[in-house]
Amino acid sequence: MTSKEVGFFNLEKSRMQFNKHLQEINIYEAGKPIELLVRSFGIAPENIIKMASNENPFGLSPKVAKVIAENSYKSYLYPDDSMFELKDSLSKRFEIEPHQIIIGAGSDQVLEFISKAILNPQAKVLMNKITFAMYSIYAKHQGATVLTTNSTEHDLNQFLKIYQKEKPQIIYICTPNNPTGDIVKKSDLFRFLEKINSNTLVVIDGAYMEYLKFRSPENEIIPKELIEKFENVIYLGTFSKAFGLGGLRVGYGIASKEIIDNLNKVRPPFNITTLSLLGAIEALKDLEFVKHSILVNFSEMAIFKKFLTKNKIKYIDSWTNFITILFEKNLNSSKVADMLLRKGIIIRDLKNYGLNSIRITIGKPEENIRFFEIFEEVLTKIK
Amino acid sequence: MTSKEVGFFNLEKSRMQFNKHLQEINIYEAGKPIELLVRSFGIAPENIIKMASNENPFGLSPKVAKVIAENSYKSYLYPDDSMFELKDSLSKRFEIEPHQIIIGAGSDQVLEFISKAILNPQAKVLMNKITFAMYSIYAKHQGATVLTTNSTEHDLNQFLKIYQKEKPQIIYICTPNNPTGDIVKKSDLFRFLEKINSNTLVVIDGAYMEYLKFRSPENEIIPKELIEKFENVIYLGTFSKAFGLGGLRVGYGIASKEIIDNLNKVRPPFNITTLSLLGAIEALKDLEFVKHSILVNFSEMAIFKKFLTKNKIKYIDSWTNFITILFEKNLNSSKVADMLLRKGIIIRDLKNYGLNSIRITIGKPEENIRFFEIFEEVLTKIK
Repeated sequence: MTSKEVGFFNLEKSRMQFNKHLQEINIYEAGKPIELLVRSFGIAPENIIKMASNENPFGLSPKVAKVIAENSYKSYLYPDDSMFELKDSLSKRFEIEPHQIIIGAGSDQVLEFISKAILNPQAKVLMNKITFAMYSIYAKHQGATVLTTNSTEHDLNQFLKIYQKEKPQIIYICTPNNPTGDIVKKSDLFRFLEKINSNTLVVIDGAYMEYLKFRSPENEIIPKELIEKFENVIYLGTFSKAFGLGGLRVGYGIASKEIIDNLNKVRPPFNITTLSLLGAIEALKDLEFVKHSILVNFSEMAIFKKFLTKNKIKYIDSWTNFITILFEKNLNSSKVADMLLRKGIIIRDLKNYGLNSIRITIGKPEENIRFFEIFEEVLTKIK
Repeated sequence: MTSKEVGFFNLEKSRMQFNKHLQEINIYEAGKPIELLVRSFGIAPENIIKMASNENPFGLSPKVAKVIAENSYKSYLYPDDSMFELKDSLSKRFEIEPHQIIIGAGSDQVLEFISKAILNPQAKVLMNKITFAMYSIYAKHQGATVLTTNSTEHDLNQFLKIYQKEKPQIIYICTPNNPTGDIVKKSDLFRFLEKINSNTLVVIDGAYMEYLKFRSPENEIIPKELIEKFENVIYLGTFSKAFGLGGLRVGYGIASKEIIDNLNKVRPPFNITTLSLLGAIEALKDLEFVKHSILVNFSEMAIFKKFLTKNKIKYIDSWTNFITILFEKNLNSSKVADMLLRKGIIIRDLKNYGLNSIRITIGKPEENIRFFEIFEEVLTKIK
């Protein structure tokens, strides 16, 4: 146990007092929206390609867009806070019970519930050195101590050593990992979980699981199997990636009823919009759309890999809809990112993750061709 | 300062540990959705009138519905996390700076930010005995102590006495108040604020301010004036009520840059959906719709009052889009609520607020006529 003081940070005598641990928080830097380039550089929207936020380049299922359009007049009604229908659909998809599901505004919000329900300034969390930024941000909201491994890819031996020494309240495993795209082998993960005491919650973040499943079905983490074997695990999934509904903000957590009941205590009412609920329910009916998106993603990924190999650029092999490029010292990822930005291509610089890398969302075929052209142009200029 | 322990509640040895203070939390009971009646009682949706959640009975502006429908295909894109355009529109509406605004998923989420940024188990909050339930729920999420007055309507003298003795970190004032509908006089409020030290944050919740302004313009709380006079105040507004966008989940807080900056530290990225942002921006362009909704609301409110007076039923005078009925001991509010429910009319029982009352959202003229009929029927049966 650390002995950090819970209390107030006194900005100045008789000024407003905010929780002390908030001082340490870096605000999450979101992928830049198209509107920003239009505003900042005067680039016409049709000349901008957004490859920064791992959105589905094929958009969303036309059936989902239709349902939203047809129901837009219902936006004055608060959503069904029990989320009966969406939970029902998810419970059928995953062969679990509705009470084993919690719905969040993105799986992101489920992460927030977990932090809020379990963490406090005496708590510790453990995660990979390079992983989704919100794990540590939500932990810091609660004043908890963040422990990390020191490897870019998940090294479960390191996880285990730190776990045994520090006994963290939460361990985060992201497979496939964001922002690197690599995976944890299912057999390794299950062996690891057997060594974790049931008073530590293990969060398995499967935001990109639909992509992993396509490429390596043997490494798919199946929520039902996971929570039946381990009582101290929560699985996270989302509609933001393969389902193409990032803007609707719908994700979910799957765990034992006991864990879900406790998380529900910190879930705000009406945390999903009325149209988002309808959209997510409809999305689960159009799995053909998801399948098609994933199919094209990996055929385009192969073209990306060829392009990078041809240009002697290192990358991390990816089980997702993005690919992470590792630059040598002679290239600065922030500079590359900025030059691409000014030419209308938004990608994600990973400098603030401690990597001299950029993360590129795999686009539609025509977008990828344009990316290759402009990227080659930038590389020629910069050298 | 109370000395409550920060720590874990040990459910059982080696079981998952959740924050101790969560044990005390009652989950917010949302107004019942139409789908529930369809499922539970098999009532056809067209025979159900929802008068429970203070939604705008006229729905939303058709212009807003149109914008949402036309942009539904954009749901795959994450929203602009800077919320540039909505903040720009709000800053013009309220004659303030964009950096004095924070956007939440309903003003509800701004309440959550405030709690998270300021409260901890050593903190105290002060609110009216009967007021919006989420103030105390979010305070309890942080383990803070909730202090209340003992009057149904806001009694600022009582507030002041408790404030001076207990020095709470946050004071909540809801005007008009939910679920009672009464208001705090502007002159009284400003005199009260002068007596509060600047290290206590005062939250002025103006969720129904558009209605108040129409009925008693002299008591409108104007955010610009408020935050210019008092550095320790945050004003909350919402698109859920007069603007008719409850299902889109958009509200806002207006305060000094310092307060807003600190709240932003606990704001999750992408907390507003892409379509909700577009909807709220469009809603600010159609103030005629809002004006019309409010106009009809108060003409219908007059008919409600006549009906209640005729039937010798007490009510609290209301500056909102709802009216709260106070039953004598011979009538049980829960029983009345249940009987109405079974006839397809959803209203809000206030039994769990400690009142033998029901809160009724003023509906469209034809809905109100039907309510009067069925309510009279229920009263006849019950007596």
